[in-house]
Amino acid sequence: MKIIVDAFGGDHAPRAVMEGCAMAVAEYGIEVLLVGDRARIEQCAQENGISMEGISIEHAPGIMPVEAEPTDIRKKYADSSLAVGLQKLTKQEGDALVSAGSTGALVVGASLMVGRIKGIKRAAIGTLIPTFNGAYLLLDSGANAECRPEMLQQFAVMGSAYMQALQGVAAPRVGLINIGSEPNKGTPLQQESYQLLQNSPIHFIGNVEPRELPGWACDVAVADGFTGNVVLKLTEGVALSFAGEIKRMLKANTFTMFAALLMRKNLQEFKKKMDYTEHGGAPLMGISRPVIKAHGSSNAKAFKNAIRQARDFAAGDVVGRIETALADIKAHEKQQENESARS
Amino acid sequence: MKIIVDAFGGDHAPRAVMEGCAMAVAEYGIEVLLVGDRARIEQCAQENGISMEGISIEHAPGIMPVEAEPTDIRKKYADSSLAVGLQKLTKQEGDALVSAGSTGALVVGASLMVGRIKGIKRAAIGTLIPTFNGAYLLLDSGANAECRPEMLQQFAVMGSAYMQALQGVAAPRVGLINIGSEPNKGTPLQQESYQLLQNSPIHFIGNVEPRELPGWACDVAVADGFTGNVVLKLTEGVALSFAGEIKRMLKANTFTMFAALLMRKNLQEFKKKMDYTEHGGAPLMGISRPVIKAHGSSNAKAFKNAIRQARDFAAGDVVGRIETALADIKAHEKQQENESARS
Repeated sequence: MKIIVDAFGGDHAPRAVMEGCAMAVAEYGIEVLLVGDRARIEQCAQENGISMEGISIEHAPGIMPVEAEPTDIRKKYADSSLAVGLQKLTKQEGDALVSAGSTGALVVGASLMVGRIKGIKRAAIGTLIPTFNGAYLLLDSGANAECRPEMLQQFAVMGSAYMQALQGVAAPRVGLINIGSEPNKGTPLQQESYQLLQNSPIHFIGNVEPRELPGWACDVAVADGFTGNVVLKLTEGVALSFAGEIKRMLKANTFTMFAALLMRKNLQEFKKKMDYTEHGGAPLMGISRPVIKAHGSSNAKAFKNAIRQARDFAAGDVVGRIETALADIKAHEKQQENESARS
Repeated sequence: MKIIVDAFGGDHAPRAVMEGCAMAVAEYGIEVLLVGDRARIEQCAQENGISMEGISIEHAPGIMPVEAEPTDIRKKYADSSLAVGLQKLTKQEGDALVSAGSTGALVVGASLMVGRIKGIKRAAIGTLIPTFNGAYLLLDSGANAECRPEMLQQFAVMGSAYMQALQGVAAPRVGLINIGSEPNKGTPLQQESYQLLQNSPIHFIGNVEPRELPGWACDVAVADGFTGNVVLKLTEGVALSFAGEIKRMLKANTFTMFAALLMRKNLQEFKKKMDYTEHGGAPLMGISRPVIKAHGSSNAKAFKNAIRQARDFAAGDVVGRIETALADIKAHEKQQENESARS
């Protein structure tokens, strides 16, 4: 198994990326194809004593800035570490790709260069959202602000395949994010999606209200990219405000500081449950080869976890599972057509 | 000042409603017109020793169930406490109305019977969301799943007027809930609303990302009713999951239980900051007379606060402020038309 890694994506590139690669090679026994400026990579390895065992370098002189226009990836930034990495993935010179570069460039580059799975209308970003009970995959979490019902159906199928393969959930509970439990709630998008989801080869549990999400009401939460992004960022925002207020409270006076000491272990566990870096990155769903978007602020550990996630994405044949599910949907639609023609 | 109160709305009616009314009369020196079955009200007062000083009763034999079709309020449930209360408000026999009944029935009943402010396209539900720094008014928080840009502009104007009058904020910061800070982010609804909001008689601070909301990024947060309801319910959900986890942690063992004792005062303050009942109910914005929707689970204190809020809604002339702002928008539009005609 060989994972292609963009050496020049993220706030702490290339050092954190390379340290994460070295940790992943040592821990998971995989190979890494590291893409980026060869001289800078070699210098960074030397200066920081990073082992390059199991890591080969693919030279790419350029870097795609986060603020660059995503569509420029194919011409202006064709020599960037991200573009060259995607080329390598297309040519099957690696089994999966990890990058902490611009989300927009990754979505556009992967869709145009690597290509979508046949029949998939749009690539979606999946984000694993931790709750105190377990994590759920939210998609689309921001790639497509506007969606049609068929897109939400495909998000559900893709999210299901991912959770089966990577989290070992046999029949992931798929919920449609909506403002009420009844099928007629929400806008026409939710109403029509509900009907499609009921007739899909997934374990659809109906509408899930946002209030229930933090209680782990489902394994896969489906929404258009606007709503998904609101859910993602508001969950982070409320969690951070609570964490900040708890911190302030514990530092209020000598009594509370002593209290904090008494429950140090419990507080650490509490913090760990909320830790996003434990979960690696965000899978890009619907691309014909596995792609993981690592968080821009990823440290070495987060990169290591993203690489493990990329390995599991490839090994679990998520793409194959999605293809099978799409074929099922098509067969079901054909059957319904035949039935309505006969009657 | 006389506040009309629906005696038979909410989970704890009529007792909690009546206790709240008695507290409000004693504390704020207002009058209450309590609407509902006279015999049951009198019996409840006697059984629970609730003072009826300052409270007059308007007999209404029926009750509108929460699950009833909202549009049935005018015929099938015309004799319900909610319908009769709205009639009294229409006839100006009271300055404002408070009900903890069905939100849908209240929105429909108020829109059809009391009527909207001239020029207002749709009534919206405003919800005061507490943060650890201050509260912001979210609207629409669920009355209109689908919205047009002009509706969001009106929500902004109405929310601004409310926060000026009730919270004493001279120039409330109005933010448009969106998935990025740039004007071109989001769907066409957000993009077009952004342009309208820039040209409105309000203090528009641009897009506000959901991550920033819990940090009190604005005083008024504007969104379509679908997005607003997601924000409202997810904020509650994440807050409740954190509160539950903190509770569990504090009860984990003798050390943490001792820690909880040490910071009892701080924990009480923490809890108070999150307490929704402190803020009363949700103002129904855009109706030609003040209407407050109290939470279904309101206790006596929450009813008392909702009555105070109704009093301030009327005394602060929120309706008049909205009318002035609408006239400003109209004048501005006319001026722009003239300018473009001249050029």
